[in-house]
Amino acid sequence: MAERFAVLGAGAWGTAVAIHLAKLGHAVSLWAARGESAARLFAARENLPLLPGVPIPDKIAVTADSDEATRNTDNWIVAIPTAFLRPTLSRFIELATSRTRCLSLTKGIEVGSFLRPSEIIAETLAVKTVAALSGPSHAEEMARGLPTSVVVAGTDREFAATIQHAFGTARFRVYTNRDLIGLELGGALKNVLGIAAGICDGLGFGDNAKSALLTRSIVEMTRFGVALGAEAATFAGLAGIGDLMTTCFSRHGRNRRVGERLGRGEPLDAILAGPQVAEGVYTAKSVRQRSLALGLDVPIMSAVYDVLYEGKSPLAAVQDLMARQMREEG
Amino acid sequence: MAERFAVLGAGAWGTAVAIHLAKLGHAVSLWAARGESAARLFAARENLPLLPGVPIPDKIAVTADSDEATRNTDNWIVAIPTAFLRPTLSRFIELATSRTRCLSLTKGIEVGSFLRPSEIIAETLAVKTVAALSGPSHAEEMARGLPTSVVVAGTDREFAATIQHAFGTARFRVYTNRDLIGLELGGALKNVLGIAAGICDGLGFGDNAKSALLTRSIVEMTRFGVALGAEAATFAGLAGIGDLMTTCFSRHGRNRRVGERLGRGEPLDAILAGPQVAEGVYTAKSVRQRSLALGLDVPIMSAVYDVLYEGKSPLAAVQDLMARQMREEG
Repeated sequence: MAERFAVLGAGAWGTAVAIHLAKLGHAVSLWAARGESAARLFAARENLPLLPGVPIPDKIAVTADSDEATRNTDNWIVAIPTAFLRPTLSRFIELATSRTRCLSLTKGIEVGSFLRPSEIIAETLAVKTVAALSGPSHAEEMARGLPTSVVVAGTDREFAATIQHAFGTARFRVYTNRDLIGLELGGALKNVLGIAAGICDGLGFGDNAKSALLTRSIVEMTRFGVALGAEAATFAGLAGIGDLMTTCFSRHGRNRRVGERLGRGEPLDAILAGPQVAEGVYTAKSVRQRSLALGLDVPIMSAVYDVLYEGKSPLAAVQDLMARQMREEG
Repeated sequence: MAERFAVLGAGAWGTAVAIHLAKLGHAVSLWAARGESAARLFAARENLPLLPGVPIPDKIAVTADSDEATRNTDNWIVAIPTAFLRPTLSRFIELATSRTRCLSLTKGIEVGSFLRPSEIIAETLAVKTVAALSGPSHAEEMARGLPTSVVVAGTDREFAATIQHAFGTARFRVYTNRDLIGLELGGALKNVLGIAAGICDGLGFGDNAKSALLTRSIVEMTRFGVALGAEAATFAGLAGIGDLMTTCFSRHGRNRRVGERLGRGEPLDAILAGPQVAEGVYTAKSVRQRSLALGLDVPIMSAVYDVLYEGKSPLAAVQDLMARQMREEG
């Protein structure tokens, strides 16, 4: 059944999802935060430079007007980076009603509050029905029609089922899961761990080292998540290890690339000067605060923090990691 | 403490391990199955074409004489492909004593008997102390001194500790584990699953698809292993998911490459004509027999079997896999 969706945020992933939904026959509006961005998307019918070569169908209504974007639809899809989520959503407060249902595509943790995107959305818009979508899903691949599998989690099972049916195709598989906390933590933590994997790449290490690091990364992600109320099984699924592998091995990954440049010795200022946000840089800070408060042992994510914020050399950080590991597995 | 080791088998991994041990000050002999291979290694002091550019130190005694290779040492390291293991070991039956201890580097399952390498070694040589080493460890990287982490498992804890201390360095980390069954099954099954990942590559799919496939591969590997007496935790470690990731993402992997060529549409005969063995081709057959006998659901490994032995098209196999998956995760 055709639905109506408003996609808030015209980054690579928001644009790719809007195009996907429009192709499936849904009515879709795509909201860009800045008027000039919306005008450019509208004119070019292509998201340059984030998603070059992928046409935006004419039937997608591109706009920077929040009222226009959400008119006639209760299904909002939020694709705004965590750091801008709260201020950007403030432009939609008056438009949300008791029928509004939000699907979060945002991966991250708010610095300071340690709130997950679904919590920020629920709090800011005062909506009750919020779900989140995650999994190994680079926008570039999905937009080119390559097979992709994701997971939707949320407290409202009917909304999760609506998303599953509205989004799902033979090439875009949508699974459901009830562990919203685990799904969102997986999507946030993998960005920090992706920076660690990138550091290994930048230091010139190989696949042996990276696979060993990832094996320990999953243990660390699970330990941290379970302490915050998530289910361990979620991290063994698409939103945990699945997304982590794509983040750590794919050339597309922004966080991995930040780590790679750090590993090569580039200064952080230069690395962060680019236009796109690498969420892991902020999430590392949140994880540090929370793991200290809870007394959790998260050596890999701590090493990333030390490299980013304490001036520790990437090589020393990795050597310390290798030296501290235990001698019996498990 | 310096030990004496005989490495039986001069393939890439046997050669790399022999060089590693010699550099650490151990007395090492390297046995090649054929006289001309030994003569070539002895003359060139380099294993061409398997490990080009890595010098074999003069103090490694290279020989094709089984008596000479094992003289004065009770520590044998077995690095012979599974398909040749039993006939090759027959040349050492008379030389094994009650003091002989074997470390298996072989990854695979014997077709027909479904015996693991450590079982074949124990049976053929009538030795009691057999351990096995596994984990994400491409010979090419290890020989170049890149960081590598592995696991040793065996029933004799003293022998496992000997291996751990004799092999371990800051860049070559050796963990211990007591689950010999799980460690060996992980090393065998990942080759079949690596062919599946290669098929995805050959079909032109991306990292989204491969990460989703690997997420399900770990579930399948664990289910199969636990049914055969392994511990689930082993598959979450270096010998399970760690080795699987390297196999599926690395350019070096022979099994992944077999899958990639299948995915591109090359005929199997041409793919298997090369000089190196891709163990997964044989292991797929063993897994099929055993999973049918035990009534185990292993869709990914079954799909690999169907492509290899039943003439199924790689694309149809992958499409069937995607169509059959469940709609709720876990």
